[in-house]
Amino acid sequence: MTVEQKRIAVIGNNKISTSYAFAMMNRQLNVEVCLIADKKVQSLKDMAYGAYFRPKMGLTSGGFAECRNATMIIFAHDPFLDAENTQQASSIVRRFVNRWMETGFQGICLVATPQSEVVAHWIMKFSGLASEKIIALGTMLDTAFLQSELGRYFQVNAKNVHAYMIGSTLKNGVPAWSRAFIGGRPILSYIMDDPDRYSFEKLEPIVKQMQELPNEPLGEGRLFDCSIALALVELTRIILEDEGMILTVGVHVQDKFGMTSGFISVPAVIAASGVKRIVPLTLSDSEQKQLAVAVKSIQNAVQAGLPNERGTKHGI
Amino acid sequence: MTVEQKRIAVIGNNKISTSYAFAMMNRQLNVEVCLIADKKVQSLKDMAYGAYFRPKMGLTSGGFAECRNATMIIFAHDPFLDAENTQQASSIVRRFVNRWMETGFQGICLVATPQSEVVAHWIMKFSGLASEKIIALGTMLDTAFLQSELGRYFQVNAKNVHAYMIGSTLKNGVPAWSRAFIGGRPILSYIMDDPDRYSFEKLEPIVKQMQELPNEPLGEGRLFDCSIALALVELTRIILEDEGMILTVGVHVQDKFGMTSGFISVPAVIAASGVKRIVPLTLSDSEQKQLAVAVKSIQNAVQAGLPNERGTKHGI
Amino acid sequence: MTVEQKRIAVIGNNKISTSYAFAMMNRQLNVEVCLIADKKVQSLKDMAYGAYFRPKMGLTSGGFAECRNATMIIFAHDPFLDAENTQQASSIVRRFVNRWMETGFQGICLVATPQSEVVAHWIMKFSGLASEKIIALGTMLDTAFLQSELGRYFQVNAKNVHAYMIGSTLKNGVPAWSRAFIGGRPILSYIMDDPDRYSFEKLEPIVKQMQELPNEPLGEGRLFDCSIALALVELTRIILEDEGMILTVGVHVQDKFGMTSGFISVPAVIAASGVKRIVPLTLSDSEQKQLAVAVKSIQNAVQAGLPNERGTKHGI
Amino acid sequence: MTVEQKRIAVIGNNKISTSYAFAMMNRQLNVEVCLIADKKVQSLKDMAYGAYFRPKMGLTSGGFAECRNATMIIFAHDPFLDAENTQQASSIVRRFVNRWMETGFQGICLVATPQSEVVAHWIMKFSGLASEKIIALGTMLDTAFLQSELGRYFQVNAKNVHAYMIGSTLKNGVPAWSRAFIGGRPILSYIMDDPDRYSFEKLEPIVKQMQELPNEPLGEGRLFDCSIALALVELTRIILEDEGMILTVGVHVQDKFGMTSGFISVPAVIAASGVKRIVPLTLSDSEQKQLAVAVKSIQNAVQAGLPNERGTKHGI
Repeated sequence: MTVEQKRIAVIGNNKISTSYAFAMMNRQLNVEVCLIADKKVQSLKDMAYGAYFRPKMGLTSGGFAECRNATMIIFAHDPFLDAENTQQASSIVRRFVNRWMETGFQGICLVATPQSEVVAHWIMKFSGLASEKIIALGTMLDTAFLQSELGRYFQVNAKNVHAYMIGSTLKNGVPAWSRAFIGGRPILSYIMDDPDRYSFEKLEPIVKQMQELPNEPLGEGRLFDCSIALALVELTRIILEDEGMILTVGVHVQDKFGMTSGFISVPAVIAASGVKRIVPLTLSDSEQKQLAVAVKSIQNAVQAGLPNERGTKHGI
Repeated sequence: MTVEQKRIAVIGNNKISTSYAFAMMNRQLNVEVCLIADKKVQSLKDMAYGAYFRPKMGLTSGGFAECRNATMIIFAHDPFLDAENTQQASSIVRRFVNRWMETGFQGICLVATPQSEVVAHWIMKFSGLASEKIIALGTMLDTAFLQSELGRYFQVNAKNVHAYMIGSTLKNGVPAWSRAFIGGRPILSYIMDDPDRYSFEKLEPIVKQMQELPNEPLGEGRLFDCSIALALVELTRIILEDEGMILTVGVHVQDKFGMTSGFISVPAVIAASGVKRIVPLTLSDSEQKQLAVAVKSIQNAVQAGLPNERGTKHGI
Repeated sequence: MTVEQKRIAVIGNNKISTSYAFAMMNRQLNVEVCLIADKKVQSLKDMAYGAYFRPKMGLTSGGFAECRNATMIIFAHDPFLDAENTQQASSIVRRFVNRWMETGFQGICLVATPQSEVVAHWIMKFSGLASEKIIALGTMLDTAFLQSELGRYFQVNAKNVHAYMIGSTLKNGVPAWSRAFIGGRPILSYIMDDPDRYSFEKLEPIVKQMQELPNEPLGEGRLFDCSIALALVELTRIILEDEGMILTVGVHVQDKFGMTSGFISVPAVIAASGVKRIVPLTLSDSEQKQLAVAVKSIQNAVQAGLPNERGTKHGI
Repeated sequence: MTVEQKRIAVIGNNKISTSYAFAMMNRQLNVEVCLIADKKVQSLKDMAYGAYFRPKMGLTSGGFAECRNATMIIFAHDPFLDAENTQQASSIVRRFVNRWMETGFQGICLVATPQSEVVAHWIMKFSGLASEKIIALGTMLDTAFLQSELGRYFQVNAKNVHAYMIGSTLKNGVPAWSRAFIGGRPILSYIMDDPDRYSFEKLEPIVKQMQELPNEPLGEGRLFDCSIALALVELTRIILEDEGMILTVGVHVQDKFGMTSGFISVPAVIAASGVKRIVPLTLSDSEQKQLAVAVKSIQNAVQAGLPNERGTKHGI
């Protein structure tokens, strides 16, 4: 019996990567995390120095060749950071995709960049990977934050709150209030039955707060690297342990949620194979309208990165 | 700084008690579990012998005096086992209650006996403890089993299934189908939208199976000691860590769910203070009818144990 | 990516098996535990009913065919229980070994029976498995208990106590005092430097207590099923996670510790491949003498089970 | 029953503090970590945003008043960073100590600064706290790294390696080879018995590597913030859970290890009360000489920070 750790290749030399590595180390998952980097990563040496205290995870660094047998790639490089326009950003993504795909990689790709649904779409197109193997972080963190805040408001454990942020992050985030429940009871009923105590006026700031976060929360030194890392660790664990959990992440849908074909954040069952199933959701008219805005915005950004492509008509 | 472990006193010299102690030991909660027993418990010596491997929990035994400063009492003695009738059973309960109440106990009482809602009612009456401090295991395990089975059926993690068994255990268990959701979508919608794939015909056996379990699953050498222990450990942890989780356990309700005043298994928020809040639940007509049967049955059993009591008419 | 749980086949329909399954379930190792049993095991149904609370481990039952791809077999059937003599006991072992070896099993075999070193020897002989793949529980639990008690006596965490029970269990257990340390300092020094506070007189009862335990602590309803289960779970985890930990377990030695060729409990490095290395130990004269008694006793029992075998003279 | 989380106040607005907070959050200890800061800490907002995934730890920030009821203070501010000389550094420490002591703080103080034994001494002097309540991180991380590396070299789990770095960090670190064991056997014996395989030549680089680390590894953006955070989390846990573990940390000794009265890193039993006991260690002549250098260096630095103090003659 030989014990081989599954390898997770992390692309992107920024604080998300190192926060992810540190959080994974702390979580003690029995897996190898390999930072793909041209030069030695200083923080790797730092973490390795304390490996005695959290020894289970293997922490390595290496070139793109390490992607070959990786179970997962975490793409955390922000392609918008150094790009002048969307077209340039998509070119950057394409170069990364080419480098890992030529190794023969056939695993799951998690996308943790700004506009992660858009980048996920490009990755699908450039890589030829099956759509269920590409998962954008999307609104996973937004949903988690919403549930925490609702838990605080309704004084119940956040795990008992079922409310989703869908669409996309920031200003394109749509709270699916009509499908929000606490313990089998719609949040709408809580508010209607006890208007003195509960009101939408008090809930709206939670969402507003999320929508008004700085425009590009990802990347070195910017907001939310640690929280993104925590979400990524949870997503990683759910895939590694084949949990079959429902998460709102950016997944590829066809003729659903007003999207002909593309990535959007909606509830989906995530397991070892990637996206196992999209969870249908009956939305209110107003929610559908908000979602249409998100869909439009995502589609425009995707196209802006693929301007002269005729191929987009068939097959994406 | 001194470190004092909270004490949990376990009453009832049977397999539930020892399975609970063993499961608690394995769970490594930082707490003292004290088996209240007249003589040395052999299995305690056994577990203590292996304490090196799971050292965090303190495992002790002692007399009723140990209840004095206990954070929790777990009452797992089956009063029906040696009783010829309900009246005798309630007398047995009264004797136990008297012994622990005279120590000055003011903690939370978890009831893990057959007909736990009935026994919980007697305990409330005999002890004078505030009703929110008494929690019957009720349908907690039934709900967990239902969610596991529905998770298997709908191919999703059981943690994403929100379906409750309410009322009471066994034949008085009521599945609240009208309030059952998976990922923000009613189970009824799953079945209506895809009748070829999903149907109630396939769900009913899950409930039938529970309702037809041997009549008294608790106590030495009988069914479900291990699973009851697992549920008790989870309930213990939720209280110790002040989780505020919604559980279907036997709680005291007044003028709700068709019950004037008494214990019934319904969703409630459980935290360090005991029962923090009952979660309102809008049931279908058919579910209300089934629940009425459960309520009636519980009330009858409660009264049968208190035949000459006039006091029951006002307030209990 | 498919997720296949490693399978652990448990042979022996007794309380060790079920306690092991329950402890493994509580420990949440991501593995399948399969009880090899002719008929449905009642306690399996019990545990499965509470699987919602501890879902990670797969719990199954099946016939000997399930041993084929098993990573480990845990042999917990007490062959002495129904045997009139050692010869019969070894025949019972042989029948079990034949049934699992004909499936093509090539994993690791853990032996958790009375006289586990003796039974391990028989298994090696009957199975033809490489000696490093057979590990008897031996004095693993005794060492753990000794370390716990010394920790209590010297007021230090048991993990900082390095003291071994070697040889075999019960009356053949040898405390290797000359090699016992606490935090880099010999226990002998503690006693010599501070004889008013520490003395061997106070340590001896710990060992005596172990040596005088009922002669056959294993099997249904007898002592130490839970603690044996805890030790087995730890041993299982160390192998599954390739920990490379030093444990005193029954391992095959050649020309060491006064044993020409046979199983004896001594410190060994245990990892995914089984026994990786025996740890050399310089014993005092008195310890060597005690150990010689244990070796003799084990050798006699092994031979008594293989009376007409000439082959035993050379090499086994 | 009310649940009050113990509070840990963290002083020092640098990467050690935030890495510690993040590692504590990941470790899910049931405790409040309060960063003492004049202005809002950006990374706190970041971590709080992902609290859904790791909810157990409370994460707050506040002024020095929060130290009042704190169980522990972690002093991570590097006083040498902005100081021109040692005297100035000690003044900075004094100002911090005054601010937390005037709240009435009576807990345990962990010191995680460069020259932590020196700073610990100043804190003892300025605060008047009992010496057993002040623990410098000292060589805790160095010992952990040494054990990891020796584990790799001897191919055994690092938890089975008992080897200490004592004295102080960096060039004043002394490996106590004469007291180093693996599984009850001295490392010296391994080398003597099998010189072809093992040699000191191969072990020395491990120590050299540690001694040649950049001179001031602590503070914002410098080396080893993550590994220091991991060591601090472990130290915190050991105190919170009253583990009684032997660690090499900077503790106050009197007339031991060549130190008349002062802090030095040696093995000590650490528990809820702080330093429970120094573990005696018989060192070789050469080790004693090396240690004398470390002692001298620490004493000089301590005195350099207290030049005009006459009080140092009696009582420190």
